[in-house]
Amino acid sequence: MTRVTVLGAGMMGSALCVPLTDSGHDVHLVGTHLDGPIIRELQANRPHPTLHVELPRTIRAFFAEQLEEAAADTELLVLGVSSAGIRWAAQRLSRLARADLPVLMVTKGLAWEGGQLTLLPDLLVTQLAPELRGTIHPVAIAGPCIAGELARRVPTCVVLTGRDPELCRELATHLQTAYYRLWTNPDVVGVQVCAALKNAFAMGMGFGAGQHEREGGHPGPVARHNYEAAVLAQAVREMQQLVRALDGDPQTVVGLAGIGDLDVTCNGGRTGRFGRLLGSGIGLAAALGQMSGETLECREILAELRAALPALQAEQRLSSCSLPLLHHLASVALDGDPVEMPFSRFFGH
Amino acid sequence: MTRVTVLGAGMMGSALCVPLTDSGHDVHLVGTHLDGPIIRELQANRPHPTLHVELPRTIRAFFAEQLEEAAADTELLVLGVSSAGIRWAAQRLSRLARADLPVLMVTKGLAWEGGQLTLLPDLLVTQLAPELRGTIHPVAIAGPCIAGELARRVPTCVVLTGRDPELCRELATHLQTAYYRLWTNPDVVGVQVCAALKNAFAMGMGFGAGQHEREGGHPGPVARHNYEAAVLAQAVREMQQLVRALDGDPQTVVGLAGIGDLDVTCNGGRTGRFGRLLGSGIGLAAALGQMSGETLECREILAELRAALPALQAEQRLSSCSLPLLHHLASVALDGDPVEMPFSRFFGH
Repeated sequence: MTRVTVLGAGMMGSALCVPLTDSGHDVHLVGTHLDGPIIRELQANRPHPTLHVELPRTIRAFFAEQLEEAAADTELLVLGVSSAGIRWAAQRLSRLARADLPVLMVTKGLAWEGGQLTLLPDLLVTQLAPELRGTIHPVAIAGPCIAGELARRVPTCVVLTGRDPELCRELATHLQTAYYRLWTNPDVVGVQVCAALKNAFAMGMGFGAGQHEREGGHPGPVARHNYEAAVLAQAVREMQQLVRALDGDPQTVVGLAGIGDLDVTCNGGRTGRFGRLLGSGIGLAAALGQMSGETLECREILAELRAALPALQAEQRLSSCSLPLLHHLASVALDGDPVEMPFSRFFGH
Repeated sequence: MTRVTVLGAGMMGSALCVPLTDSGHDVHLVGTHLDGPIIRELQANRPHPTLHVELPRTIRAFFAEQLEEAAADTELLVLGVSSAGIRWAAQRLSRLARADLPVLMVTKGLAWEGGQLTLLPDLLVTQLAPELRGTIHPVAIAGPCIAGELARRVPTCVVLTGRDPELCRELATHLQTAYYRLWTNPDVVGVQVCAALKNAFAMGMGFGAGQHEREGGHPGPVARHNYEAAVLAQAVREMQQLVRALDGDPQTVVGLAGIGDLDVTCNGGRTGRFGRLLGSGIGLAAALGQMSGETLECREILAELRAALPALQAEQRLSSCSLPLLHHLASVALDGDPVEMPFSRFFGH
């Protein structure tokens, strides 16, 4: 494999270009229609404006309208867009996709689509031209990976999953570097459900720090770690229940794609900040205001699950009382209810 | 239940007096022979000198030599000493213990004793007078509980385990408060193995932060979280393998006693600090020097496991290559080897 084309020059798509280059590939990075300013910086050999890292000089950056030119002779297509961009990306890919051209995606999670929960790789396939469906089996990357760390070559361990396990193993071998290590997991459902749920649960784990701040506390060894750890243990339990209800393997939760990704999501970025704001008691409207329009995957997945749960319960896959944490998180993040962690209903009581 | 006697006025024993009082008990707190200065402060109604919290005024504090007086009419004995003090405590308890007097212990973990790994509650029983063995079934508290937080009434969820499940359930009911919630888990082996191992693995999770500091990095959303999360996922995997090898239930690891306790151990105190020092590359001797003689449970358990693993492997309970993280942690913390996380051998590869 030599030529790789990455579509999406946001943080994750761009960060992935670093190990792609280091594993010996000739990388073309193509911005979306929103990435023009990023591409201009990269073409001028300046640092990536949101990663704040200089990408390897051998990476060639292209504007969205240059996709066909950039992807000529490519041997791997990488979808580096966020879940919000998946339909746009599928449309663009349709013109390039071929049965013998593997598609790797950093986009992961679930969508509530036509009355059922759909895995994003499956959604991508449904958006492709009809003659391509059934011939393309996207491979998804999951597991604990903060883009800014990968771009700085921090040791990172991830998981590839897809409906073609042989292709997953092949890509895992081709993309490996000393700092970027890939394993494979054939449990597509488990991996994608974990990827989706981690945002909601990481938000809930932020509540404790927000309450601690409200009470005038400072970060340190004595804070609300007991509270956070209890929420973590219940979160892992509920992730296992949901994975099982959707016919995935609960043991996937006990790995990189589950607890690993949940852990980094608590440490980095937007989701944890939103959880801390909610925990601080300022109220949903004020918390949303302070996030100033940033995409909040945690709210999206909570809204989707709220739509999906009645069907799962009707099919007897889930008992109505088995997800007290998730229901509470939805009521706080969607309805503006106050944070009152339902500890008494945790752990099967 | 009205009168409770707690032996050991260190941080955990003393912190536990707060929910014991709030759940309606008359609490006597008895120091060990090392706790004299603490008892003097408490008797003078000053804050606990290491918790930095004023304990409820109704708690009566006693010196070690007053144990018999303090424990007169007691209906529950609580062992609040560290694992290092368990033999001393057993000797003192022998004079008080009766078959109808429940013993609750915060001391938890494993000891390498007479050529086998022994659970600390079982070790306690072997140290009692011969006529008492078989009549006393200590109940142990495990799960994520930083003493300084419990003493400040931060919501805390813990697990009781013991060889008398009915007694565990009874105590869980009696000790419950609005902020201190107790569940029971009959898997004595799984809970105690988790309690022991979490110190070793939390040390390893600190390596990443130490490396980040050495490279001039500051704490923040971009640090070495990817590295820490990969170590966490492998730690949980190895905890499950060891629990299974010792005939415990691997699902116990996926709960308060396992990932919950591992999480708080990474956030608080000595173990994480020692791991960061080792990760910073200053070397074992210098790291031990900076810990200035503090007890390091992580080194104790690593030394015990190193002694125990050959027997487990000889019995075919464990394959010799299945614990790459644990072996590396032992080589760093006991032999002074440099930190070089064996990621390539993680996750069954």
